[in-house]
Amino acid sequence: MPPDRISATYRIETAHPIGRAVESMAGEQSTGTFVRVPGETDALRERFGARVERVTELEDADGPSLPGSRPPGGAGAAPRFRRAEVVLSWPLENVGPSLPNLLATVAGNLFELSAFSGLKLVDLDLPPAFGEAYPGPQFGPEGTRRLSGVEGRPIIGTIIKPSVGLAPGETAALVGTLIEAGIDFVKDDELMANPPHSPLGRRVEAVMRVVNDHADRTGKKAMIAFNITDEIDAMRRHHDAVLDAGGTCVMVSLNGVGLAGVAHLRSHSQLPIHGHRNGWGIYARHPMLGMEFAAYSTFYRLAGADHLHCNGLRNKFCEPDDSVVASARRCLAPLFGRRVMPVIASGQWAGRAGETYERIGSIDLMHVCGGGIMAHPDGVAAGVLSLRQAWEAALSGTPADEYARARPELRRALEAFGP
Amino acid sequence: MPPDRISATYRIETAHPIGRAVESMAGEQSTGTFVRVPGETDALRERFGARVERVTELEDADGPSLPGSRPPGGAGAAPRFRRAEVVLSWPLENVGPSLPNLLATVAGNLFELSAFSGLKLVDLDLPPAFGEAYPGPQFGPEGTRRLSGVEGRPIIGTIIKPSVGLAPGETAALVGTLIEAGIDFVKDDELMANPPHSPLGRRVEAVMRVVNDHADRTGKKAMIAFNITDEIDAMRRHHDAVLDAGGTCVMVSLNGVGLAGVAHLRSHSQLPIHGHRNGWGIYARHPMLGMEFAAYSTFYRLAGADHLHCNGLRNKFCEPDDSVVASARRCLAPLFGRRVMPVIASGQWAGRAGETYERIGSIDLMHVCGGGIMAHPDGVAAGVLSLRQAWEAALSGTPADEYARARPELRRALEAFGP
Repeated sequence: MPPDRISATYRIETAHPIGRAVESMAGEQSTGTFVRVPGETDALRERFGARVERVTELEDADGPSLPGSRPPGGAGAAPRFRRAEVVLSWPLENVGPSLPNLLATVAGNLFELSAFSGLKLVDLDLPPAFGEAYPGPQFGPEGTRRLSGVEGRPIIGTIIKPSVGLAPGETAALVGTLIEAGIDFVKDDELMANPPHSPLGRRVEAVMRVVNDHADRTGKKAMIAFNITDEIDAMRRHHDAVLDAGGTCVMVSLNGVGLAGVAHLRSHSQLPIHGHRNGWGIYARHPMLGMEFAAYSTFYRLAGADHLHCNGLRNKFCEPDDSVVASARRCLAPLFGRRVMPVIASGQWAGRAGETYERIGSIDLMHVCGGGIMAHPDGVAAGVLSLRQAWEAALSGTPADEYARARPELRRALEAFGP
Repeated sequence: MPPDRISATYRIETAHPIGRAVESMAGEQSTGTFVRVPGETDALRERFGARVERVTELEDADGPSLPGSRPPGGAGAAPRFRRAEVVLSWPLENVGPSLPNLLATVAGNLFELSAFSGLKLVDLDLPPAFGEAYPGPQFGPEGTRRLSGVEGRPIIGTIIKPSVGLAPGETAALVGTLIEAGIDFVKDDELMANPPHSPLGRRVEAVMRVVNDHADRTGKKAMIAFNITDEIDAMRRHHDAVLDAGGTCVMVSLNGVGLAGVAHLRSHSQLPIHGHRNGWGIYARHPMLGMEFAAYSTFYRLAGADHLHCNGLRNKFCEPDDSVVASARRCLAPLFGRRVMPVIASGQWAGRAGETYERIGSIDLMHVCGGGIMAHPDGVAAGVLSLRQAWEAALSGTPADEYARARPELRRALEAFGP
């Protein structure tokens, strides 16, 4: 793609001739409307019109994937629903390097077009101007390692459970147990931000007292991702409270805050931003509607997330393993020279380490285990150890059950959570 | 619902026993996780657990609406996919009155749960604390009428076309033609915000010179919705530029800016916020995935939108008329005492006025016609007149074709765009 063009890949499904359908996408998202208007000169269309770069036909669908499409020829005909992967491009000057406006151009009204019975934004390829306008992740894997003091293996983490209901002192006590057990990283649940029963300021104070005490004694400071999801000014205050208390990470619900909010936080932040994608299922769940992770993550990486949730292998949700692996690898492929740290979470425990390493092929990830640490039969310390041992096994190329023979924590985890 | 509880209505589809599936939704979004953890005491669950308020079974689905669900009993069984409408509630103290965090609680991970082959957030019922924390629309229909000087009929508007490619002077010339023709309202396209080829500052200056000149001469100032979609600080600057130039409206792409960004703009704004929902198809297109307008609009009304796009009757997109009508009526039902102005747009022209009035039952709307004004065979002035005449007919209960006999502009519109 030339350096001054924005390009987007889609998977589409239509009962109309594909060429004409794709031209209508390009028209709708650039100079065209449903009738030719006086100002739409040939010169204007030549300069500002979106261009169809590539159309690759895929296998037909059995029937329409989404309701509401209007096949040609009316209700009587028996339409054929063709699928294709298509690439459109736009001149950068149509939009400028602005993420909120990019969304309107590459996504926007497209999902409502009646010519399509399926339309998914698959990927984006952006000109360097976006990398200049947006600094992207400030810390990424390297900065996160530096702050958490973990080298040579993934960052092993867990999540505060129950998700809601604990008072600040109770959360601090639980964090105390976890860091005594050697945990690297602890995150708030996405359901717990700044509610009346656990105001963020009091939680930060109580938790960081425990974290700082431990760091003073041992030299190891666990990274705590405090959920600062909130309105703009409140997020800045929350960030400052975490920073002032010696904290090393803030977390936000990306879809709740939105692109402009995350980018604003990035411009203010002195801490890694842990990006939680809850609500992601709306974009991801249907194969012919919404947005794939490659496109979605491009937006939030540029906006400044340092960590991005990717689910985990054999997660408790609907996402297939191949999709998890592709997402994590995408995070680790530089975008304008910067990588983001994939967060492998959901249904995770020691038994997933080997396969995770094998398939993702990197240690630059956060391996976040809830029940897999908290519900270890010998307690959380054994839970944390079981994860470290499992990664030692993976990194040395030793099968986990063999490595577990002399390591009771890993052995007990395999017995408790294994098949 | 008691005044201290948040309540959400969903349409779900599951091959699991409905009671158990719904309990898993409630658990996932409050105190539960996939294993019982030590801190989840009965007292904590009693106080913070989400509650199932109602389950109404609907007709079964023929098969799974979405891929990825895991029916009980494994692959061999022939599962029955049951549908139901369910209401869950949460104590306000789980979340506090925060929209970005409310989204994580009522939507969040739910769409990924493997027990469901369909899940749609239908509606929300929020406690008064949200109405106190968020001022909502600052202008609404009343303030918009005051600023645009239109009483006794809908606000008649159009959109700048071509969507992209016009230079500021060309946009100003087109606006000049439109306001000479008597238009009430003109909006930028969602594809046109602050691109290099038409910087917002220069566009505002050029357009407002024309608008202010006309207002000085005639006393009528057309409302121009300048698309200020951008990052937080830039949106503030753009808003101030519009205000300083005498402008009376700003427009944002809601999904591009996000909840925190829109609420921040509202806290700063002295102008009505025209809320464009492009990207809405991701939420709306599938009947068993995403969010209905009733829920979606609740978020952006509280965040501060004064106008909300609802599509129009017989629009060029996929949305059925019943959905358009329900959305517009929902905008006109007060939320914490405040209404938002529905924007009826897409495929609109004079011939839609009668049915729009009949079905929505209000004149408190913006009727935005692109081609229906711009492509009128006798020019834009005739296009604007045809809309005014069509609404006169509708409001006096006269059939449009009868009213058109003595009114050539309406008659020519009916001839050109009618069936």
